[in-house]
Amino acid sequence: MAIHETRSGGSRALCAIGGHTKPAIEELVSLPGVESVRPIPVPFKLASRHFQDEPTLVRIGDVVIGGDEVVLMAGPCAVESEEQVMKTAEAVAAAGAKILRGGAFKPRTSPYSFQGLGEEGLKILRAAADRFGLLTVSELMEVAHLEMMSQYVDILQIGARNMQNFSLLKEVGKCGRPILLKRGIAATVDEWLMSAEYVMSGGNRDVIMCERGIRSFQTYTRNTLDLNAVPVVRQLSHLPIIVDPSHAVGYRDKIAPMARASVAAGADGILIEVHYDPETALCDGPQSLAPDEFASLADQLRIIAQAVDRVIMTGPPPAGGAPSSDGPKSS
Amino acid sequence: MAIHETRSGGSRALCAIGGHTKPAIEELVSLPGVESVRPIPVPFKLASRHFQDEPTLVRIGDVVIGGDEVVLMAGPCAVESEEQVMKTAEAVAAAGAKILRGGAFKPRTSPYSFQGLGEEGLKILRAAADRFGLLTVSELMEVAHLEMMSQYVDILQIGARNMQNFSLLKEVGKCGRPILLKRGIAATVDEWLMSAEYVMSGGNRDVIMCERGIRSFQTYTRNTLDLNAVPVVRQLSHLPIIVDPSHAVGYRDKIAPMARASVAAGADGILIEVHYDPETALCDGPQSLAPDEFASLADQLRIIAQAVDRVIMTGPPPAGGAPSSDGPKSS
Amino acid sequence: MAIHETRSGGSRALCAIGGHTKPAIEELVSLPGVESVRPIPVPFKLASRHFQDEPTLVRIGDVVIGGDEVVLMAGPCAVESEEQVMKTAEAVAAAGAKILRGGAFKPRTSPYSFQGLGEEGLKILRAAADRFGLLTVSELMEVAHLEMMSQYVDILQIGARNMQNFSLLKEVGKCGRPILLKRGIAATVDEWLMSAEYVMSGGNRDVIMCERGIRSFQTYTRNTLDLNAVPVVRQLSHLPIIVDPSHAVGYRDKIAPMARASVAAGADGILIEVHYDPETALCDGPQSLAPDEFASLADQLRIIAQAVDRVIMTGPPPAGGAPSSDGPKSS
Amino acid sequence: MAIHETRSGGSRALCAIGGHTKPAIEELVSLPGVESVRPIPVPFKLASRHFQDEPTLVRIGDVVIGGDEVVLMAGPCAVESEEQVMKTAEAVAAAGAKILRGGAFKPRTSPYSFQGLGEEGLKILRAAADRFGLLTVSELMEVAHLEMMSQYVDILQIGARNMQNFSLLKEVGKCGRPILLKRGIAATVDEWLMSAEYVMSGGNRDVIMCERGIRSFQTYTRNTLDLNAVPVVRQLSHLPIIVDPSHAVGYRDKIAPMARASVAAGADGILIEVHYDPETALCDGPQSLAPDEFASLADQLRIIAQAVDRVIMTGPPPAGGAPSSDGPKSS
Repeated sequence: MAIHETRSGGSRALCAIGGHTKPAIEELVSLPGVESVRPIPVPFKLASRHFQDEPTLVRIGDVVIGGDEVVLMAGPCAVESEEQVMKTAEAVAAAGAKILRGGAFKPRTSPYSFQGLGEEGLKILRAAADRFGLLTVSELMEVAHLEMMSQYVDILQIGARNMQNFSLLKEVGKCGRPILLKRGIAATVDEWLMSAEYVMSGGNRDVIMCERGIRSFQTYTRNTLDLNAVPVVRQLSHLPIIVDPSHAVGYRDKIAPMARASVAAGADGILIEVHYDPETALCDGPQSLAPDEFASLADQLRIIAQAVDRVIMTGPPPAGGAPSSDGPKSS
Repeated sequence: MAIHETRSGGSRALCAIGGHTKPAIEELVSLPGVESVRPIPVPFKLASRHFQDEPTLVRIGDVVIGGDEVVLMAGPCAVESEEQVMKTAEAVAAAGAKILRGGAFKPRTSPYSFQGLGEEGLKILRAAADRFGLLTVSELMEVAHLEMMSQYVDILQIGARNMQNFSLLKEVGKCGRPILLKRGIAATVDEWLMSAEYVMSGGNRDVIMCERGIRSFQTYTRNTLDLNAVPVVRQLSHLPIIVDPSHAVGYRDKIAPMARASVAAGADGILIEVHYDPETALCDGPQSLAPDEFASLADQLRIIAQAVDRVIMTGPPPAGGAPSSDGPKSS
Repeated sequence: MAIHETRSGGSRALCAIGGHTKPAIEELVSLPGVESVRPIPVPFKLASRHFQDEPTLVRIGDVVIGGDEVVLMAGPCAVESEEQVMKTAEAVAAAGAKILRGGAFKPRTSPYSFQGLGEEGLKILRAAADRFGLLTVSELMEVAHLEMMSQYVDILQIGARNMQNFSLLKEVGKCGRPILLKRGIAATVDEWLMSAEYVMSGGNRDVIMCERGIRSFQTYTRNTLDLNAVPVVRQLSHLPIIVDPSHAVGYRDKIAPMARASVAAGADGILIEVHYDPETALCDGPQSLAPDEFASLADQLRIIAQAVDRVIMTGPPPAGGAPSSDGPKSS
Repeated sequence: MAIHETRSGGSRALCAIGGHTKPAIEELVSLPGVESVRPIPVPFKLASRHFQDEPTLVRIGDVVIGGDEVVLMAGPCAVESEEQVMKTAEAVAAAGAKILRGGAFKPRTSPYSFQGLGEEGLKILRAAADRFGLLTVSELMEVAHLEMMSQYVDILQIGARNMQNFSLLKEVGKCGRPILLKRGIAATVDEWLMSAEYVMSGGNRDVIMCERGIRSFQTYTRNTLDLNAVPVVRQLSHLPIIVDPSHAVGYRDKIAPMARASVAAGADGILIEVHYDPETALCDGPQSLAPDEFASLADQLRIIAQAVDRVIMTGPPPAGGAPSSDGPKSS
């Protein structure tokens, strides 16, 4: 049996999971210091609001995911070259992004497609992030890469296709990095939270849920972005939830509307593909925003954030040279 | 062969549909006064931006759907009593709604469920709307009711279950009332626009598309509101598109987030169920907002509308007695 | 309150539906002649096995749907000409079909597509059926056609798009013709049975359920034929269930496999599009079988029927001139 | 660039994949011994009928999958004990099964559910299979288990949740065991064949496709078994395709109808859960057939196989003691 602990208000909550005998609730409640004992009536225990009602704040450096700020995460689909990542990083940092995305290991439907630059790509990503005061997020595809990737990446992404790769989930549950857990293409919210539970049951509580579109009968968009999932996850779980509209809709002109809708629906962050020159992207160019499109979008999102009592930071002052990481930037 | 006409900028466009011989484009282009001739490459002709690029503005009295204003439409699921409709109408008008909704003929899955008050309900709806300066929208279920309903209803709604009731679509294509065309529960956007085409080909150009949720594998919401459809329809068609989040999600706490997301995604209007006392509603109480919830939502929507260069009017001044319908109300 | 009666074994069952007060079960059970009283725990009352456990046999002339025989229904998608229907009818009768299908009013997605020959088409269908000893089935699209169609058509089909056209369902519930109720493209089995309930609650108990494919994310077939529905409906309801693989899959080479699978899954009948010359069909040619393909399929189905203790009749002897309708034909 | 070879009729076909320059088809066609050169117009190259039109026969011992015989694969969901597996193996062998299934590593939605007996379970499975003349199939969940599992398992199963675990697919592409590739729960047929391509491009041509149900809006069955996939895969690919109705429908009374339908639709094999005592199963008991149910089903399948010019073998003679593996058993 495993015991998990959390704090809520002034009190301490313990969650006991496992064991083959039904717990003797009456016995437990009579122990000294015990205020109340109750079963968790949902299959996801640690991920549920029954275990912890206060929102989980995922803190990395001075960035907090799940708090007042709606965090912008942006960058290219795949790391292709140093120039590409540097230019894109500069642009997204200027527009207010806090986290730089970029794939180095790409889960491609075809074995014959570009599979990513591997560790070389991660070095480029890290260097660009460091230069512009950003954090990094990148996808982990196999257990064997975990240690290596942890050198370069602040947030490890589990892709939609691996959402139920339970061997991988168990491993990242033991690592010290926050996990960005994309929703499987046909995953119910329960299944998705159960995958978060796999990570959390291993000891890693920093799970960020990421809606990225489900499969439906539609054909005008690549997938069907399911924004209903935002209030649904918020009701069931204390974990932060962000949205990736780029992969979901797949066409540039529909990304901004859906990004705006995501913030309006209550997302804690947005993951957007930005490429300094989308026409030349090796991967997913048609769904990448150009830097100026991203900057305009960020301005719209700042207005919408106010409607939901949230804030989106602006980027560092343009003339400021190196971006400051000391203290919050105000909008 | 039918000839349809529209104006675009300074020029006049004619759309010829039908005929069993392929049109001799070369012959047509050589006629006097003809600037250019081209085929419409999509199956929905009159509904497409190829026929008319400028947005259709549906004007009813001083309300315009499809223009700068995002129009709030609200009211009870079903008309149940005079008191219910009057109190609800007063509340939604005060919060800025322009159109009062309320079903008098209800398409119920079960033959044993409450089927609506019929014409009696429409009289109540009309009276309440007139008293508070609102327009009315209500669902038409069969051809036999068309003439009678037109006495009471400003916008005739075709429900999701009848989206491909082609006999009904043909009839409303000949009537003089704007049509609010709900999307079928598993309709592709093409099929939905083809149903609009049925109405338009009969001569009625005032079609308002209404997204109301599609069927997916999800169970935490009644249906899956598909906001992707908003930018998709906007790209393909000049027709206005509104969103009904109430029927889509089916649970009160998720309606406000999805209504906000709808406006952020670019909807031209929102159709919301409001009941002055949701606990006592005969039909769909759990998905109705209370008046104060609706008023708070309207305030949030006003902020979001600014982010997309739109406006949502406030209601008439509280002390003003009868609501004024002369001139625009400023936000 | 409505009282419906059925017989089951030697006893008589009454089903009381409606009324605003909860029935006093204790009072009822004490009445003379009452053996037991119980609530029907599903929303579809008359359609459920709780009301009637014995299978409904729909009898038309000497054809029985829902009995030992798996009934073959075949013919063109749409009635196009006398020659087409006569030749096709002759071929399908020879291969063992009992019922001739053919649309005279076609629910087309586009208002500009061929909409059917109307009453003229029904006359052709009737004449061909009579000449080759067949019954007829054809789609009813609106209430106004009901009386006229009843002169020509033995089984009235309600199409998938009208499965929840409740006004139409109520009307056919009052008519004396068996109803073939196609499943809506995204209808749950419960909704489908509720539509059957609409018909049955009007007094018409002869409802034949017809699975015809649901909408999914697939693209290699037009729809996704859901054969799971066959055992599901059989478990829940006493109504016969048949399958239409032609509309579901939409491509000729996949129709025979799915027709075989339908009989293997337990269908009471098969509705197949056959055209004496598919290449020239105005409507749905690519999904029509040629006569020899249908005859080969029928031979395969006869073998499969044995595996499920059913029988499929052969056609009349080729030299026999006019087909006999006196007495059962043995396989 | 990789060169893959196959034989078709009397000629030899080479498939060249990769390379950054477009191949000079004219140059290739002029080489000595070259009869014709053509591009493969689908994304799955080695899996397509363009590369190889003749069906792939997967041979393991004297069992052939993809040939005239429809192969029965049966056994418990999870290996639980020696008694369970022995008794079940004996029963399924007697009914004509050739391959024993049984999970030792179980992909469970919940981290708190029974995860399988691991290698201990595989030993039990192997011993039971050897005793009753059966082959084994079991699921591989991670690369680290590959070598160990290959000692016990004749066919390695890749589960639906790992269908796009590309790291795993690449590894099994290098191993010498046939791969049973389950379809992902929302995988298109193209994506599924692309996953086969991952395996084949590594050198392993023995891939068996396995349909096991897709996710839809249905709730009466666990998933929606998509038998349409059988003729679709057969048209596109030379790979054998089998069906797992047990996981798809999830309820015992619907398994036999769907198993029969699978063979009627043209499946090359059936994978069925059988438990010698379903009431006591730790995992998926409600979807397991009892031995007598499986034997009856096998008898029905033998009749249906005849309708599609296939055969299903009977088990060894009951009194024969050890089952013979010398020479084909006739039905």
